[in-house]
Amino acid sequence: MMIDTPAVLIDRERLATNIVQMAAHAAAHGIALRPHVKTHKIPEIAQIQVDAGARGITCATIGESEVFSEAGFQDIFIAYPLYLSERAVERLNALPGKVSIGVDSLEMARAVVNLREDVKALIEVDSGHHRSGISPDDEVLAEIRDVLGERYVGVFTFPGHSYGPGNGEAAAEDELHTLTSSVERLGGGLTSGGSSPSAQFTDALDEIRPGVYVFNDAQQVASGACGEEQVSMMVLSTVISRNVADRRIILDAGSKILSTDKPAWIEGHGFVLGQPNARISALSEHHATIFWPADIELPQVGEQIKVVPNHACNVINLVDEVYVQNSAEKLEIWSVAARGKNS
Amino acid sequence: MMIDTPAVLIDRERLATNIVQMAAHAAAHGIALRPHVKTHKIPEIAQIQVDAGARGITCATIGESEVFSEAGFQDIFIAYPLYLSERAVERLNALPGKVSIGVDSLEMARAVVNLREDVKALIEVDSGHHRSGISPDDEVLAEIRDVLGERYVGVFTFPGHSYGPGNGEAAAEDELHTLTSSVERLGGGLTSGGSSPSAQFTDALDEIRPGVYVFNDAQQVASGACGEEQVSMMVLSTVISRNVADRRIILDAGSKILSTDKPAWIEGHGFVLGQPNARISALSEHHATIFWPADIELPQVGEQIKVVPNHACNVINLVDEVYVQNSAEKLEIWSVAARGKNS
Repeated sequence: MMIDTPAVLIDRERLATNIVQMAAHAAAHGIALRPHVKTHKIPEIAQIQVDAGARGITCATIGESEVFSEAGFQDIFIAYPLYLSERAVERLNALPGKVSIGVDSLEMARAVVNLREDVKALIEVDSGHHRSGISPDDEVLAEIRDVLGERYVGVFTFPGHSYGPGNGEAAAEDELHTLTSSVERLGGGLTSGGSSPSAQFTDALDEIRPGVYVFNDAQQVASGACGEEQVSMMVLSTVISRNVADRRIILDAGSKILSTDKPAWIEGHGFVLGQPNARISALSEHHATIFWPADIELPQVGEQIKVVPNHACNVINLVDEVYVQNSAEKLEIWSVAARGKNS
Repeated sequence: MMIDTPAVLIDRERLATNIVQMAAHAAAHGIALRPHVKTHKIPEIAQIQVDAGARGITCATIGESEVFSEAGFQDIFIAYPLYLSERAVERLNALPGKVSIGVDSLEMARAVVNLREDVKALIEVDSGHHRSGISPDDEVLAEIRDVLGERYVGVFTFPGHSYGPGNGEAAAEDELHTLTSSVERLGGGLTSGGSSPSAQFTDALDEIRPGVYVFNDAQQVASGACGEEQVSMMVLSTVISRNVADRRIILDAGSKILSTDKPAWIEGHGFVLGQPNARISALSEHHATIFWPADIELPQVGEQIKVVPNHACNVINLVDEVYVQNSAEKLEIWSVAARGKNS
């Protein structure tokens, strides 16, 4: 099969290994694994996760949930404090199977009454990422639980401050403390947490919802969550221009496939697989600039290069399909069924 | 019409004004306008541009060209040094109408022989952006022209260093010097340049290819290319969480619709239309964090907010359709026909 570059390439064996390892970690600690599918948006991958032991899936939006429930996944937690507009209520009520949603305000706890009776809710608490979620010592926490009544299932958090070199362990501690103190105050309930960099330090929650671990990426490598050999998703690109004097090459993979995610603690916009010193120093929509290391031969125009992107979740959302390569080098195409489902 | 947020909203009148103003500037200086459609990827908008006087369009990829030629636009310049693989040659040869491509190496100049006889080429020169393109004093320039023979049309550049506060005028000078000195050395040929921030300072080229001016964005405002009142594209979002003590609100528009484009010279990941001090300080895939200015009332959960994104081109590539609002507040939906056409 000829692949027009740039394109997303997945190493099927590495993907399977990543999925099995996280499932084994969760099982070893008696934690339910409910992987976040926003990373891959691909039903085939969610099926491998469920086959490896995942109990249900996590979605970010109603649109993602619609795609995955249509594909047969009918135990979905939308880990997001949805605004329950009339349209959102209609769409949620039309989802088949087990559905639960996130809530972080009294207003939305009251609006939950409009939802189908079997739709459950988890209260979002802030474990240190300071995004959405309620502080665990805020009095409104118990008020929300009371308003939710029978729908209340437990509390959840996203320890997003686990991202960054060596941040995983401390974030996992914050997460554990926040979730357990919250359910203590509320007299019980499920504790749901987990991010890919903190998951390896998590051993005492009821449920974790990591996402990126299926693919890994430059952020996960830099955060210490994995090694380069555990990266299962790459962007295949072609050298389209080179400046021999400057040792500069230009790839056809730009921000419209690599995305521009670049936290301050990461150098460059992705790196060349197997050549961590060959980093993308500038990114336009259809150009990536790399100053090629002096000790490696400068690639020719037309050479294909595999790039490890900074953040897999935003890359997957930029393509309609991915090329999956197995150990026999055979290619399969999977559709990114939930691409663009932002609402 | 009810819009599920986040969504891209276009102000039709501002769009039309932006298009007419650029066309008038080009016409006043006798410059042909060949707008870059990678910004909008929407045939309806290209038609407005052609109706206002554009002579042909510019595309970034073969895939974009396929979509636009299918939609009836048959004078296309692919302003990119394409790698002419067997597949690329097949696809280029299948494009109807007038087609020209970019070349910046001897290897590709030689490969052009495989293309249909009427496909023309422009040589890319580097006017200071240091991405692809040949230095205008490099001897290879004339060699490439000789190899291209009858296919040679002229030279082109992208003065990308025009981006940044007040950079437009100097970049326009670099561009003019680079293009005119190149065609002098080559004994003639078309000069094609143009970026949105430099276009207002361009008065002596044969052709310009600006793209972002149709929409404008936070980068264009910061670069001095336009005022906020000339921004015609916004991301409609909803407040989904708020922290009254911190005066922090969270919108449902994250990096999967706003993209994470953020050059160092821009503060934040976009700002609230009409409230330039309300800037997005952090962006996750489905969350935007804004610390709301003390002098403006804190929005409620459920309130809708219009965000001016940093870079329009990457936003449009994240949605399948846009909502177009005319002065009578009537909404129309346009499809982003060339979304995701990266190759």
